[in-house]
Amino acid sequence: MAGAWHSGPVSIERPRAGIVVTGTEVLTGRVADANGPWLAEQLRAAGVDVGQIVVVGDRPQDLTSALTHLAAGHQLVITTGGLGPTADDLTAAVVADFQRRPMALDPELEERIGAIVGSLMARWAVRHDPAATAAGVRKQALVPAGATALGPAGTAPALVVPAPEGTDGPPVVVLPGPPSELRASWVDAVAAPEVRAVLAGAPPLRQETIRLWAMPESELAATLRRIEDDVKPLEITTCLRDGELEIVSRFAPQDEAAQQALAAAIRADFGDALFSPDGTTVDELIARGLSGRGWTAAIADRATGGHLPSRLIRRGGRFVGAQVSTALEPVSADAALALATGIRDEFDVAVGLGLTAIADGAVHLAVVTPDGGDTRSLTGAEPVLRRRVEAAALHLLLPLVQG
Amino acid sequence: MAGAWHSGPVSIERPRAGIVVTGTEVLTGRVADANGPWLAEQLRAAGVDVGQIVVVGDRPQDLTSALTHLAAGHQLVITTGGLGPTADDLTAAVVADFQRRPMALDPELEERIGAIVGSLMARWAVRHDPAATAAGVRKQALVPAGATALGPAGTAPALVVPAPEGTDGPPVVVLPGPPSELRASWVDAVAAPEVRAVLAGAPPLRQETIRLWAMPESELAATLRRIEDDVKPLEITTCLRDGELEIVSRFAPQDEAAQQALAAAIRADFGDALFSPDGTTVDELIARGLSGRGWTAAIADRATGGHLPSRLIRRGGRFVGAQVSTALEPVSADAALALATGIRDEFDVAVGLGLTAIADGAVHLAVVTPDGGDTRSLTGAEPVLRRRVEAAALHLLLPLVQG
Repeated sequence: MAGAWHSGPVSIERPRAGIVVTGTEVLTGRVADANGPWLAEQLRAAGVDVGQIVVVGDRPQDLTSALTHLAAGHQLVITTGGLGPTADDLTAAVVADFQRRPMALDPELEERIGAIVGSLMARWAVRHDPAATAAGVRKQALVPAGATALGPAGTAPALVVPAPEGTDGPPVVVLPGPPSELRASWVDAVAAPEVRAVLAGAPPLRQETIRLWAMPESELAATLRRIEDDVKPLEITTCLRDGELEIVSRFAPQDEAAQQALAAAIRADFGDALFSPDGTTVDELIARGLSGRGWTAAIADRATGGHLPSRLIRRGGRFVGAQVSTALEPVSADAALALATGIRDEFDVAVGLGLTAIADGAVHLAVVTPDGGDTRSLTGAEPVLRRRVEAAALHLLLPLVQG
Repeated sequence: MAGAWHSGPVSIERPRAGIVVTGTEVLTGRVADANGPWLAEQLRAAGVDVGQIVVVGDRPQDLTSALTHLAAGHQLVITTGGLGPTADDLTAAVVADFQRRPMALDPELEERIGAIVGSLMARWAVRHDPAATAAGVRKQALVPAGATALGPAGTAPALVVPAPEGTDGPPVVVLPGPPSELRASWVDAVAAPEVRAVLAGAPPLRQETIRLWAMPESELAATLRRIEDDVKPLEITTCLRDGELEIVSRFAPQDEAAQQALAAAIRADFGDALFSPDGTTVDELIARGLSGRGWTAAIADRATGGHLPSRLIRRGGRFVGAQVSTALEPVSADAALALATGIRDEFDVAVGLGLTAIADGAVHLAVVTPDGGDTRSLTGAEPVLRRRVEAAALHLLLPLVQG
C-alpha cells in the first residue's frame, strides 16, 4: 500500500541478494518450491534485501541468464538445487563457468561422499550398479577452483564460489535442493568469509504482521491514506485470502514509531475485526487457547474431505482426532451441532467441531465446549463455500477457546 | 539427464516466453504460487518455451528490473498479480511505464467494474466506505494507451500491452493474481492479436512422463548413458521424491521414436519398478483401480495426522471416509491389520487401509480387500518415516486394487 511507493529507509543502503531456484520440476509446478521463500526470509531477518527469486529449469543457458541478471545489482547470489549425481544436475558446473573457475576433483571429498552413499545404499538395501554409483559420487566431488565446499549435509556439498579473479562481482552460494540439506548447509554458508562480508554491511530490518477477519481491503486503503504521513517509513503490503486480511510492514528499528501509529490506527478503526495484532495465525491462536484452558479437541468433518482436520492435527498438540466422511446427509445447524457433540463424545475431548456437508448452497458449522457452544451457517455458490468454510470454522472456534 | 545437455530440437526455433509473478506474499512464502507453473504448462502445450519464472515483491524497481531482464530474449512476457484496488497493486502502472504508454481512465470500464464491485459488496453485505471503493474502482479502470483491456474476470481487467511505438520488443500480458481470474483471462489473452502472432510461430511440443517406484536415480543414469545416442532429441529431466522416480521428456512430434526407445529401455531394465508408463499418478491409478472393481475405501490413520486421508478423499470418488487419531497405541503388523479391518467395517466399504502410529522407529501398514490383504512395515528414523509412509501406503495399496 501507500508505504510501498516510498520505502526509503527499508531498501536504501541495504545489501541485496538474488536467489535462483533450479529445477524443471519446480518450473512446471510438479514440485512446489519452499527453498526460495525460506532463504528470502533468512536473508530478510539478517537485514539483506531480497527483491527477486528466479526459477529456472534444468538448462545451462537459462541458469547462466539468471546468474547474469542477478549478478548485476546484487551483492550476493544464491542458487538452490541441481547438485545431484545425474547429468541434469548441472548447477555446480554452470556456476563454476560463470565465475570463470575450472572444476577439479577433490579426492578427499570424493572419499567422504563415497562413504555416505555407501552407507545409505546399505541402509536402504537398494540394488545398485557400483560403476553408476561411483560416477555419481565423482560428479558430486567436483569443486570449482578457489571455492569452499561445505558439508555435505546430504551427499552433495554446498559451495561458496567467489567472483572471477580480479573482478568485484558477487560470490555465488550453491545450495542443495532437499530442504533439510539446504537449511543445514545455510548455517555453514553464513559462516563463510565471502558471505560474512556481505551480511556485515546489513543494518537490521524488522517485520511486523497484523491480521484482521472479515474486513474489505478497500476500507484499509482509506485508513492508510488518512495516516499516510505517519507511516511513510514503512513498507506495507496487504494480502486478502478467504476472508482474512494480512498487513505486513517492514521497517528499520529507528522507525518503530511509524509501526506503532499504524497499529493504533488499525485498532481504532477496525478493533472488532482485529484478531491478531502480532501476526500470530488463527491456527496458532486456537492452539494456545486450547492449551490455556487445558482442553483437547476433535473434528467431525463432512465439508473439507479431511483437509481442515489434517491442518489442525498435523501442527501437533491439542487436536487429537477426527472422523471424516463424504456422506451427503441432511444439512442444518442442528445437524452440525449433533456432529460436534458426537465427535466430542467419541474422542472424549472437551471441544467438538462439526462441519456438515456442503449441499443446496449451504454449509453449517458448530462448536461445543464445556462453556457452551455456537453455530454458524454460510450460504453461497459451492466453490466459494469450499474456499471459505475452513476460515469460517476457525474464526467460529477462536473466540470460544480464547475464553 | 543426458538429453538436457543437447536439447537442440526442443529449444531451437521455438518462441520463448518469460513469466513474472508479483507479490511480496509470494516472495516471502506466505502464499505458494500456482500461477507461474500453470502458465508455463499452458505455454508449453502451445509449443512456447518457458525457461524462467521471476518472482518479485510489490516494488516498482524490482518489477521493472524483471521486465527488462525478460524482454531481452523473449518474444512474450506475462505478469501475474498486482491488479487490485490498493496502491501496492502497481503492476499495470509499472508495465505501462515500461512499454512507454501513459495510463488513461477508461470511463466505460470504470462503469463496468463499479457495477461488479457494487454487486459484490451487496452480496457479501460488507460495510464499506463508498469513497474508498470508488477510488479502488477508478484505479482498476486505468488502461495504458494502445493496450487491450480483457474481461474483467474478477474486478480487475487483464491487459495486453504492446511494445513501445517503433520498437520490436515483446508485448506484455498483464494477468490478475487470483487463480480462477487468471485462468479465465488467459483464454481471452490467447485470442488477442499480439499474443496470437507469437503463438502462431510455435511448432508443437510433446511431453511424456514415466514413473518408477523404489528405484535409485543412479541406476537410471547408467541406462541413459547406455542409450545416449538414441535419446539425443529428448530433453529429459528426472525427479526423485519419497521413493518415486519421475522421468519427464519433451520432444518435437517427429522425434517420437526417441521417446519410444527411452520407454523400451526403461521397461527392459526396470520393468518391476515401472508402475506408470504414461505419467498417471499413483493416486489416480488407485482411484481407477477402485473404480474398475466397483470398490469403495476408507482409511484408519494413526501416522499422517489426517494428511493421507485428506489427499485421497479430496480427489473425490472412491474414498468415502476416515478416522484419524493421534493416540500412541502399540504398533505392530497385527495392529495395522486390525485398523484396516475395523475401518472397513465402520464405513461398510470393500477396502480398508490402516496405518499405525510411528513409534520406536517403525510404522506398520495394512490393506484389506475382498480378495485378501497385505501388510508392510517400515523402519528408520522418525523424520524419514514421516516422509516415506504415505508413498509406501499408496504403493502397498496399488497392486491390490489393480487386481
